[in-house]
Amino acid sequence: MPAEGEEMRSPESSTFADLPQRAAAVVERLRARSPRVHCITNTVAQNFTANVLLAAGCIPSMTLSAEEIGSFVAGANALLINLGTLDVERRQATDIAVTTAAERGVPWVLDPVFVDRSAARAEFARGLLACGPNLVRLNEAEFATLAGAPAERTSAAQFADAHGCVVAISGKADLVSDGARVVQIANGHPWMSQVTAMGCAGSALVAACLAAADDSFAASVAALLLLGIAGELAAAHAKGPGTFAANILDALSTLDASTLIARARIA
Amino acid sequence: MPAEGEEMRSPESSTFADLPQRAAAVVERLRARSPRVHCITNTVAQNFTANVLLAAGCIPSMTLSAEEIGSFVAGANALLINLGTLDVERRQATDIAVTTAAERGVPWVLDPVFVDRSAARAEFARGLLACGPNLVRLNEAEFATLAGAPAERTSAAQFADAHGCVVAISGKADLVSDGARVVQIANGHPWMSQVTAMGCAGSALVAACLAAADDSFAASVAALLLLGIAGELAAAHAKGPGTFAANILDALSTLDASTLIARARIA
Amino acid sequence: MPAEGEEMRSPESSTFADLPQRAAAVVERLRARSPRVHCITNTVAQNFTANVLLAAGCIPSMTLSAEEIGSFVAGANALLINLGTLDVERRQATDIAVTTAAERGVPWVLDPVFVDRSAARAEFARGLLACGPNLVRLNEAEFATLAGAPAERTSAAQFADAHGCVVAISGKADLVSDGARVVQIANGHPWMSQVTAMGCAGSALVAACLAAADDSFAASVAALLLLGIAGELAAAHAKGPGTFAANILDALSTLDASTLIARARIA
Repeated sequence: MPAEGEEMRSPESSTFADLPQRAAAVVERLRARSPRVHCITNTVAQNFTANVLLAAGCIPSMTLSAEEIGSFVAGANALLINLGTLDVERRQATDIAVTTAAERGVPWVLDPVFVDRSAARAEFARGLLACGPNLVRLNEAEFATLAGAPAERTSAAQFADAHGCVVAISGKADLVSDGARVVQIANGHPWMSQVTAMGCAGSALVAACLAAADDSFAASVAALLLLGIAGELAAAHAKGPGTFAANILDALSTLDASTLIARARIA
Repeated sequence: MPAEGEEMRSPESSTFADLPQRAAAVVERLRARSPRVHCITNTVAQNFTANVLLAAGCIPSMTLSAEEIGSFVAGANALLINLGTLDVERRQATDIAVTTAAERGVPWVLDPVFVDRSAARAEFARGLLACGPNLVRLNEAEFATLAGAPAERTSAAQFADAHGCVVAISGKADLVSDGARVVQIANGHPWMSQVTAMGCAGSALVAACLAAADDSFAASVAALLLLGIAGELAAAHAKGPGTFAANILDALSTLDASTLIARARIA
Repeated sequence: MPAEGEEMRSPESSTFADLPQRAAAVVERLRARSPRVHCITNTVAQNFTANVLLAAGCIPSMTLSAEEIGSFVAGANALLINLGTLDVERRQATDIAVTTAAERGVPWVLDPVFVDRSAARAEFARGLLACGPNLVRLNEAEFATLAGAPAERTSAAQFADAHGCVVAISGKADLVSDGARVVQIANGHPWMSQVTAMGCAGSALVAACLAAADDSFAASVAALLLLGIAGELAAAHAKGPGTFAANILDALSTLDASTLIARARIA
């Protein structure tokens, strides 16, 4: 679709002019709805992810047990599948969770952590991509592994189009595309990459926003703005990555629509 | 037992007048004894639970391995069974741990996390209730699932009486009953519900206090006062749930008997 | 080797006079190289360990899956095997990881957590000792269990000599020996023992330094100075163990060579 590709590379600025307002509306609905977000995520990330969701006003759950996960996903408003520390139980849980999400219409996010470090994991991730996630969130190395191309506007749009999902690629600036639209979000702070599970927690926040929006693209932009701007606010109160991790939770719990609109850096 | 029910609903205030002093004595013995507390708890809660126990002067251990857990429980002064993120290994570990605790007279606490979200988990929790925990700690939704009645003074006392244990129900105010006695503890701070594992860590603290007291009722009151008052002190130094989580550990490590007595809000 | 033993008990101070400078050089190479450190560690410690490694400028990974761990270890610059919360999956992962490390020349650290609490674990640890770790890090009770002798300069040197590795024993002061040399490092702060996983994270930092130095002895000294001095700096900004845990990450991320040399307390 070369025409779309052209449009993506030089979008009229008016196209996305209302995106901060739409993202702010998603965040307000997130606070109002307190969605239940079930997370299959790695043990490194579980605690921080739960705290990020709680700070944002959501209700996290994390069980993996084959007997239970169906009930948890069926009762959830969104689902996160994160492949970090993949193991047998997590793979079984993932199969049940994805099937339940499809049956119940629960939106889900795939975060294929470290697919660039393990062929077995990349294979498993490709199988999940075929199951129809609403959104895929990953970093540049992970994107390159799954897309077979470096992360930029055109490849992001092609990947989203090919897999029928939104893709959100984290990097110095985040790229988000649903195939038709591509934006770059420049909010955030360097300390975000020095706190483990920041990316994983960000993917959980994207899942939470999917539960608060009809438009997956706006939901993804909302979540990334929320996290990135919280990071900027937190950095002002922190002296390094340790105090920053505590302060970003504080910032997430109070960040309001007007601050989000005022600070959004979308291109 | 309507007479007891009556008494419970309108206890003479003198009945519990010395409860803060007795709770403070439990906390002082806790600091002096440094009990070993073995915790079967969910992976989300393990780190914060260990830090809460360390801050309170205890020695946590968390292993789940079938070959090892018997030794750990036999060498512990108290045991916590928390059902969050229940899985096959945790269920096997629980069976061994509960059997060992019964043989060795190690007091134990059951925290039936999320039984309201999964029938399989509620079933497993009922089996554990029949094994004779010294104390059951749970929130209002979990209590309603296991007790078949909403959480209030009479139902709490009936539940404790029926199961031969102390019950501690967390909510805006905590309810504690051993069947004969019921008290309400109003200490705490709203940020406590925005930090993951705060309830799980509180249950571990109850287990620790069981190891420092002959009276499970006083032990439970002591632990809930300790955590709730630490929360109030921490909030004064925090700007949100992230900095609050760090500050509650600071407060737990220094909270003394006189502060506990002065701030206790028991009704 | 009585002559060596004599020398160890009364080393000429000149022998270790340049050790702070050599340790500082290791830390500078650590920052420059950003080594990948794969950690098989317990679920309590994973998050804090990852944050310590990130704060120090390293890239942590933590997967345990049998299909994947070979790839992760082969691509890593150092490996940590920590036995806390030992289970079936971790034991399988450990076998694969140690074999891969031997084949690829990846240096590895053994941290035999709690071998004093479980005979099964002590047995497993002895098997791993025979596989040739570059370094063993443990506390005094764990050392006594594996060495059959209390921790002091001579027994440390004998243990290191017998197993062909460096040994680092944590305590009020840390003892480090490679058989020929023994030093005591007195940096640190009491709050370090009130934060869970501080020791585990320290062992991960030792592994990271092994990836940045040819000399395992200097690497170990570097890691222990880095953590101990970061602890001293963090304590100045903290009010208790909770805020201390955040501040030690801040301190680790900025601690420079000149501060390390100025504050090193080696005897």
